[in-house]
Amino acid sequence: MSSSPSYQKLRARFREAALLRSTEGVLGWDQETGLPPKAVGWRAEQMSHLSGLVHRLTTGREIGEWLGECEVAGFAGESTEGVNVRGWRREYDRATKLPAALVEEFSLTTSAGMHAWAEARKVSDFSAFRPVLEKLVRLCQEKADHYGWTTCRYDALMDIYEPGARSADIGALFSELGPEVAGLIGPAMEKAAAQPENLLAGHYPVAAQQAFNREVAAAVGFDFEAGRIDTTTHPFCTGLGPGDTRLTTRYDESDLFGSLYGVLHEAGHGLYDQGLRAEEWGLPAGDAVSLGIHESQSRLWENHIGGSDAFWEHWYPRACHHFPGLTKFTPSQIAAAARRVSPSFIRVEADEVTYDQHIILRFELERGLINGDLAVKDVPEAWNARFKELLGLTVPDDARGCLQDIHWSMGSLGYFSTYTLGNLNASQLMKAVRAAHPGLDGELASGKYSTLLGWLRKNVQELGQTLDPPELMRRATGETTNAKHHLEYLRGKFL
Amino acid sequence: MSSSPSYQKLRARFREAALLRSTEGVLGWDQETGLPPKAVGWRAEQMSHLSGLVHRLTTGREIGEWLGECEVAGFAGESTEGVNVRGWRREYDRATKLPAALVEEFSLTTSAGMHAWAEARKVSDFSAFRPVLEKLVRLCQEKADHYGWTTCRYDALMDIYEPGARSADIGALFSELGPEVAGLIGPAMEKAAAQPENLLAGHYPVAAQQAFNREVAAAVGFDFEAGRIDTTTHPFCTGLGPGDTRLTTRYDESDLFGSLYGVLHEAGHGLYDQGLRAEEWGLPAGDAVSLGIHESQSRLWENHIGGSDAFWEHWYPRACHHFPGLTKFTPSQIAAAARRVSPSFIRVEADEVTYDQHIILRFELERGLINGDLAVKDVPEAWNARFKELLGLTVPDDARGCLQDIHWSMGSLGYFSTYTLGNLNASQLMKAVRAAHPGLDGELASGKYSTLLGWLRKNVQELGQTLDPPELMRRATGETTNAKHHLEYLRGKFL
Repeated sequence: MSSSPSYQKLRARFREAALLRSTEGVLGWDQETGLPPKAVGWRAEQMSHLSGLVHRLTTGREIGEWLGECEVAGFAGESTEGVNVRGWRREYDRATKLPAALVEEFSLTTSAGMHAWAEARKVSDFSAFRPVLEKLVRLCQEKADHYGWTTCRYDALMDIYEPGARSADIGALFSELGPEVAGLIGPAMEKAAAQPENLLAGHYPVAAQQAFNREVAAAVGFDFEAGRIDTTTHPFCTGLGPGDTRLTTRYDESDLFGSLYGVLHEAGHGLYDQGLRAEEWGLPAGDAVSLGIHESQSRLWENHIGGSDAFWEHWYPRACHHFPGLTKFTPSQIAAAARRVSPSFIRVEADEVTYDQHIILRFELERGLINGDLAVKDVPEAWNARFKELLGLTVPDDARGCLQDIHWSMGSLGYFSTYTLGNLNASQLMKAVRAAHPGLDGELASGKYSTLLGWLRKNVQELGQTLDPPELMRRATGETTNAKHHLEYLRGKFL
Repeated sequence: MSSSPSYQKLRARFREAALLRSTEGVLGWDQETGLPPKAVGWRAEQMSHLSGLVHRLTTGREIGEWLGECEVAGFAGESTEGVNVRGWRREYDRATKLPAALVEEFSLTTSAGMHAWAEARKVSDFSAFRPVLEKLVRLCQEKADHYGWTTCRYDALMDIYEPGARSADIGALFSELGPEVAGLIGPAMEKAAAQPENLLAGHYPVAAQQAFNREVAAAVGFDFEAGRIDTTTHPFCTGLGPGDTRLTTRYDESDLFGSLYGVLHEAGHGLYDQGLRAEEWGLPAGDAVSLGIHESQSRLWENHIGGSDAFWEHWYPRACHHFPGLTKFTPSQIAAAARRVSPSFIRVEADEVTYDQHIILRFELERGLINGDLAVKDVPEAWNARFKELLGLTVPDDARGCLQDIHWSMGSLGYFSTYTLGNLNASQLMKAVRAAHPGLDGELASGKYSTLLGWLRKNVQELGQTLDPPELMRRATGETTNAKHHLEYLRGKFL
């Protein structure tokens, strides 16, 4: 069956696309890590040329024919061939369902949108962004209609980032989560206040941070023979091929935690990447399944592992070796200092408890915009009202309110909820692996991470796109994604 | 005329090839500077895929038709269009004149050749390399015959690297140079012996070397907004697009000079690259003309500028700032220490005086091999005999003799002479710019390099491939390349 000529043609074609996409990935990584300023224009031309080549390779009519032949032949749903054919179909449909005129208008409008958004944010005036956002919402609605949907138009956009996600399910999940988290904030702040703020204020030299981060990343299983860590303004993780996973972080010498938790977060993404099947790399069977699953891996290592008392108990001697000033504190003081809780206006600066409230707000507004229940002109008012309910703060201006994120200006509606899905999935996966391995906490306390990583490899990473996210979670944890385990985790950690 | 449809099609096609070639360049740079070891296989596939795309783009039959149309129309020889059409013709003919079977056999044989060479060198046994070298020589002869030649088959191979070079001219030049240099070696060594060896032995930290190198590179005109310096095992310079020129060097903390002169050498190449016409980048009118001219730029900055007394007079305070131990010495002691002269077996470790003797030897042997005057089996004997004449030393074994270079195993016969052409051209260009600017030495003594660079930009760099190397040298210096000025320079510097 795997020698079906149509399947072999598809595989060869999409492998070629993977070579070119990963080449574009190298150009992108290089652009962020050290491109000379005067090279920006040429680099943009190189990347756009590769994008064009990939688009032509992956949208030809012959692909539709090969896919049809494979679908008629029928591969077992969870076989490598079945997973690949299903993924290629998804990609091919997505790339060919939109009329060229819509793609072009979308691209022009997002260019204008990013410019208008940046200007509007500068002067904190939503009305300057409103016209282009109205157009972007309309174009996103058109996209959704071309992709197709059944009960809710917004589903078609969420599905881009999280296959199988339904607004009804996510909405119910978030309705449960929001009030519970709101009730947690006060007590968690009260508990955090027991320790003086800025207890760890001091000087943490970059070289020492780099050395410590590297030790920790290697210990959790990041393979430095198959990856590296560099420095950028905005941290990210990028997979550039089998055996080539690159993380970045940034350094602040007055902050012990920023680069470390940045590295643990990105290393979580990187471990997923390094756990994918190398021989299917860049094909659906060897590719990550969704953003919500990807984010579960990063949040798990960042928060559940790195943010635990056990972590600091174990790493205390090495941390003191790199930062001798830390000997003044106990491991649990350090761990407590990392558990800051304080509602604030800006999502990307939010702590672990309040972060999901920012996401719930955006999910609700986006769904309203796309489904036609909320007009663009009413966004600031709706934002500010809901922000007060979710986080208890009065938004002072649009720059610290509905103008803070770049996503809408790029037309990326449907994306935000995956951040919270990641948090919920992380807690749920940790619950399941603890149940499967009763000795796990003892291992984690002694810095042994291989059982945890092995379980994630088997139950998440090596599956690629074999299962859609709800089914992946059901098989791995016995339930689809829900809020219960995350709330339990937050209460245990912050109360 | 420039709106000729055929010309526009060619320009678009070769610009696309330039985008892809420079993308392959980024992959190559990344491979040398920091590719994770486990990514080597995927990287090779990415690069070979891009090579294939470029090959298909630049060898289609339609290119021959467009070229024919442009040649019939006729562009002025030194117009941008004329230069580009001539360069594309050269490239197209070279890419299409060889039968596919020969290209494939050549590629297979060089893979085998590099392996056999490495093994043979390890045990210092030429006979293990001999069979594959015999085959490579035969294939090179076939290539030369396909390319075409008139009086000497070896010309067809030299022309790949140095357009317009003829063995008769180079042979005459080298016959003059060799005995003169041989006569210089003894007296130069005697003079160098006046200063104790290893006078500057000490510790030169990498960070201080990097800071000093960067100051010097910026001062001679290397634009760090359009380039960077990284660390690799083997130093190189690569142009990755207009505004993106990257140098590399290596560091030895016991050696003051290695990384500095490495940077000056590569910055010389880099200044050429940064001086090319940006709007024609990657096309013949915006590309370097030959290896012999490229090497003239690197050797000029490395030896004529960096190796001068004036350089160390000027840079002494900054050097002492970065390396406080240097205050024990005078600037002229430092300059003298950089002028080491000592015949040795290995070309890549040779000093400035003896280096060309190594090249002359290789040129003579290669010419003999390709023209059929020397059998491969006789190479070691011929090598050792001629080495004795040129450098006065008895070669102890093949590893330190005819097995030391990788070039032959790669089938790169015809390449070596460009190193010496670079040395001769550098001296000749310096003579000419001094004549054009009588105040130049005063400027150089005070660390002002802009007049020199401006003259090189105008007379060499901005021309791209407008003139072939002999004509470029004639217009810039009044004479084609000859040995006189270089000998004068060596005598002035080393006697």
